Amino acid sequence: MESVTDTRQRIINSARDLMFARSYSEVGVQEICRDAGVQKGSFYHFFPSKRDLTLAVLDQLDTYFRNEVLGKAFAKDIPPVQRISRFFEMLYSGQSAIKAESGQLYGCPFGNLACEMSTQDEAIRKKIDHFFQAAEQPIAETLTEAMEQGDLPAIDPVASARAIFAYAEGIMLVAKTRNDPKVLRELGNHALQLVIPATVS
Amino acid sequence: MESVTDTRQRIINSARDLMFARSYSEVGVQEICRDAGVQKGSFYHFFPSKRDLTLAVLDQLDTYFRNEVLGKAFAKDIPPVQRISRFFEMLYSGQSAIKAESGQLYGCPFGNLACEMSTQDEAIRKKIDHFFQAAEQPIAETLTEAMEQGDLPAIDPVASARAIFAYAEGIMLVAKTRNDPKVLRELGNHALQLVIPATVS
Repeated sequence: MESVTDTRQRIINSARDLMFARSYSEVGVQEICRDAGVQKGSFYHFFPSKRDLTLAVLDQLDTYFRNEVLGKAFAKDIPPVQRISRFFEMLYSGQSAIKAESGQLYGCPFGNLACEMSTQDEAIRKKIDHFFQAAEQPIAETLTEAMEQGDLPAIDPVASARAIFAYAEGIMLVAKTRNDPKVLRELGNHALQLVIPATVS
Repeated sequence: MESVTDTRQRIINSARDLMFARSYSEVGVQEICRDAGVQKGSFYHFFPSKRDLTLAVLDQLDTYFRNEVLGKAFAKDIPPVQRISRFFEMLYSGQSAIKAESGQLYGCPFGNLACEMSTQDEAIRKKIDHFFQAAEQPIAETLTEAMEQGDLPAIDPVASARAIFAYAEGIMLVAKTRNDPKVLRELGNHALQLVIPATVS
């Protein structure tokens, strides 16, 4: 017999996959229920609304990205500067896999939802903003370590980490618009330059 | 008596403003008609569908951004490197004005629509991609001029322009998610670093 946890998780997985492939507004409760194989009554037992479900989806995506993407990209098995490159390489391989399977480049699930919903739902906007700020932390720690090891000049690691994260969101957006993962590899190579003080006249 | 052109333009303006403040999916033909003060029959006389109207909105936004944003930011009245900074300063002042009026930071109308619609509508995706690639051109020309004047080291101006444009989209996305135009000013300062070759160990 299926547990309550399984049903709730199936609803979350369906919403996550359907919204990632399309958008928040284009995916309704009825379609999520059909995809998850649950009745509407069961849906509303777990989630008062699509918005509450979306907040639960974001919580699980947050955990996934912290552990599986940021945690692995910025693991200390390689020198700090190389971890930045690994992060961008992981964005490339992740989006390449999605494109190979679906024919489409979905981009960043947080960035997509932020663009669509930030002016329309404060709870969703704030949760994504919280994730963004948390995502900058391992980048800042990595830059600090690189400075301490003499691999980078003296920079502001927090401001530089924010610039690198914003750049990652930007190249994901442009790659989605071009529907071409190569954009991520080509532009990802520029990311490290964001942390080097510019010397122009 | 109002001309046909006026009616068509009023529909375009309403769609542009409503979608920019919210999203494509959350704004329907009925609301656009109400806002523009036209009957549905009149709407469908001009546009077969909301999608066709959106393509017309994008064409007008394209003209506006080329002339009023890119054209003015990259005008040759100041040294080339300073034009890059002026472009980012214009993003900051534009979004600050929107925030001051509406209480919300709307971000980039092209980037928003690209995130929401790229996997759902090929015509919309391709039109935005076309605009993105055109927007990179004045940046590349400015970088080339800076190199020729000795203000920048030898770089690939086309690749660097793409990086700068993607960075602009990224900081607009993060600023929208934080609902804070200051993000644009703080992170905009890093943009020039994208064109300086990184020297890390």
